[in-house]
Amino acid sequence: MASGTLLYAQSGGVTAVINATASAVIRTARAKRVRVLAARNGILGALREDLIDTSAEPAAAIRALAHTPGGAFGSCRYKLGALDADRPKYERLLEVLRAHDVRWFLYNGGNDSADTALKVSRLAAEFGYPLTCVGVPKTIDNDLAVTDACPGFGSAAKYTAVSVREAALDVAAMADTSTRVFIYEAMGRHAGWLAAAAGLAGQTPDEAPQVILLPERTFDEAAFLARVRQVVERVGWCVVVASEGIRDADGRFVAEAGGSDAFGHSQLGGVAAHLADRVKQALGFKVHWTLPDYLQRSARHIASATDWEQAQAVGAAAVEFALAGRNAVMPVIVRTTDAPYRWRIEAAPLARIANHEKSMPAGFIRRDGFGITGRARRYLEPLIRGEAPLPYGRDGLPKYVTLRNRTVPRRLPAWEG
Amino acid sequence: MASGTLLYAQSGGVTAVINATASAVIRTARAKRVRVLAARNGILGALREDLIDTSAEPAAAIRALAHTPGGAFGSCRYKLGALDADRPKYERLLEVLRAHDVRWFLYNGGNDSADTALKVSRLAAEFGYPLTCVGVPKTIDNDLAVTDACPGFGSAAKYTAVSVREAALDVAAMADTSTRVFIYEAMGRHAGWLAAAAGLAGQTPDEAPQVILLPERTFDEAAFLARVRQVVERVGWCVVVASEGIRDADGRFVAEAGGSDAFGHSQLGGVAAHLADRVKQALGFKVHWTLPDYLQRSARHIASATDWEQAQAVGAAAVEFALAGRNAVMPVIVRTTDAPYRWRIEAAPLARIANHEKSMPAGFIRRDGFGITGRARRYLEPLIRGEAPLPYGRDGLPKYVTLRNRTVPRRLPAWEG
Repeated sequence: MASGTLLYAQSGGVTAVINATASAVIRTARAKRVRVLAARNGILGALREDLIDTSAEPAAAIRALAHTPGGAFGSCRYKLGALDADRPKYERLLEVLRAHDVRWFLYNGGNDSADTALKVSRLAAEFGYPLTCVGVPKTIDNDLAVTDACPGFGSAAKYTAVSVREAALDVAAMADTSTRVFIYEAMGRHAGWLAAAAGLAGQTPDEAPQVILLPERTFDEAAFLARVRQVVERVGWCVVVASEGIRDADGRFVAEAGGSDAFGHSQLGGVAAHLADRVKQALGFKVHWTLPDYLQRSARHIASATDWEQAQAVGAAAVEFALAGRNAVMPVIVRTTDAPYRWRIEAAPLARIANHEKSMPAGFIRRDGFGITGRARRYLEPLIRGEAPLPYGRDGLPKYVTLRNRTVPRRLPAWEG
Repeated sequence: MASGTLLYAQSGGVTAVINATASAVIRTARAKRVRVLAARNGILGALREDLIDTSAEPAAAIRALAHTPGGAFGSCRYKLGALDADRPKYERLLEVLRAHDVRWFLYNGGNDSADTALKVSRLAAEFGYPLTCVGVPKTIDNDLAVTDACPGFGSAAKYTAVSVREAALDVAAMADTSTRVFIYEAMGRHAGWLAAAAGLAGQTPDEAPQVILLPERTFDEAAFLARVRQVVERVGWCVVVASEGIRDADGRFVAEAGGSDAFGHSQLGGVAAHLADRVKQALGFKVHWTLPDYLQRSARHIASATDWEQAQAVGAAAVEFALAGRNAVMPVIVRTTDAPYRWRIEAAPLARIANHEKSMPAGFIRRDGFGITGRARRYLEPLIRGEAPLPYGRDGLPKYVTLRNRTVPRRLPAWEG
């Protein structure tokens, strides 16, 4: 057995497959007889010394974790600042790691988490504490640099494409006397990856979704309405997929364009409602809209096999890299060919990932701005390919596991953060 | 080969399995060498003499129809009135049936469709035209009389229970620093069947959904907010499932309680947004909400095997009943035992079904009004049981079929309706 402990923590919005990563981390570490602790509620658990002993979980539970959505140890939205500004927090973190003999720290999240892992590794070096920090990629936003795709995205993308195709069949059947326009609101504040993935639902301009609105393009209401009208005239109905983050020419979120939502707020998440109103008012069509919200990132029942395999591959590789002493790296997915789709895992320096954001290439967006290109399809399609296995119970529901999450006794005074 | 033609039409909101019924109708009729026409866009196609020749579809397409959501021939929202008031329409209908030698008319829908089929059968008798009319049950609202369950409901119920369980895992993981309350808006204007089905996602009062709001109970905002606060204090987070049709003590839809939505309308579909605002304002918790809308009734990818089998069974039985000359009946599902769950198909008179509405028994609702009883579970659980088979393509999407839908040449002058 290797001496020392591995600490794993989940960060930011959870996904349908982040627990698949966790499962692979624990299984790989167990095979190497390394003890794994998990921080409860992400980095906050590490700061609070609120740690979970994963060795209390039976092997069957860890296997079931691989098909359970959500974040089994809890995640958090909590950003550590610059090393100088937040130095007491970083030092507390190091103190907790030292108190539990943590020699390997795996932080499973997005850009911010990569940045945190990098800073912790620097501080450890400064203090001469032997620690290997590895970032593990995760985000449905698909905006991490270097890696070809981000675990979590492929499953949300598959949910989006399947849901849009299914809803389109409903709309097509009813359009003669009922709804003519259906609007689907996809997550994506800065980049339109999920809305773009909806484009996989159709092959031709007349197949749904006929209109995709991406935050990479300025929203032009007149052009949008004209396009919807054209599509309804030609096809009989129209499905629109809108990123929550689309903005108008003044840079204002369209979700806020009305000044406020029903209750005077201007939070995001109201794009579909707003567009539905505009279509109804300007074009007179009956409109329905959907806001899937968390359903799109938790829908393990329609997860992509590619995504699920990659989520486990980065988890296993993170443990390998950590135990090999490869400090301040992240396992990333490298695509070697599109057709057949092949990929492998490599280590990339956290410094190349932290605080970078990958945007959607301009070549992925159709010239008219309302759809995706063949290049985008070639990139996106393999990511939603395959159906990840999922056991169901006699009750018709997926067999998701709840872990025991036994707390490790504290060794330090409470955190005063 | 039996002499004459069978006409099949789809009516009202479509479901994940109404095409499974259509597929069974066509397969059963083909086995008996009976020609099947389908009305395009429901009863309107019959009135307009816009008929589809299903014999142009290859057997493989008809098999694929069994796993394709939406309404393959088009459906409509179009209600025929009383026989006296709408007599010209009923007569036109009979004229079209006669012109195409239709001897069997199968109308696949809800209460209104049962009523229409009944009236058509009466008019045919009055005119001495030999016609057998059979209603075929379908509705995600589960509100048809006599039948134990309505094809379409079980799959929407499964979608609801699975989605709520998955979203709850997401919320539980994030509650420490992010969303504490998640609100899911279910379809159901008059009866809370779908919201009730969400209750299958949890077994204990602390498992999600902790609060279900049903239209069968008057919405009491103070009691609701108190309950949400209690749950968050005890569990750390709370998942609410609300029927779109809940009303306050004055009988007003809660969706309209604010007077209007963001844009001055008072259409339904805004319950979750409204409740989210109230929770945020009154309790200060971060809230997310979802409006799945059509996704809940078109999600063939998570259809229930029970529902799918019953949808096909009523289709096959409808053809059997029709060819046997059993006029003005509907094949209904009779539950013989709960455990093991057993059911069979029987014929019920349309007169017992038309214009009746089955509400949820009071014994299905927990005394406090915020959940379902064991009796409700025993009724609901078998309906979401099993996963209906679904082939996927290499592209990661379900293989849904698009029919040719070849139009039958007209024999009558255009309808002036």
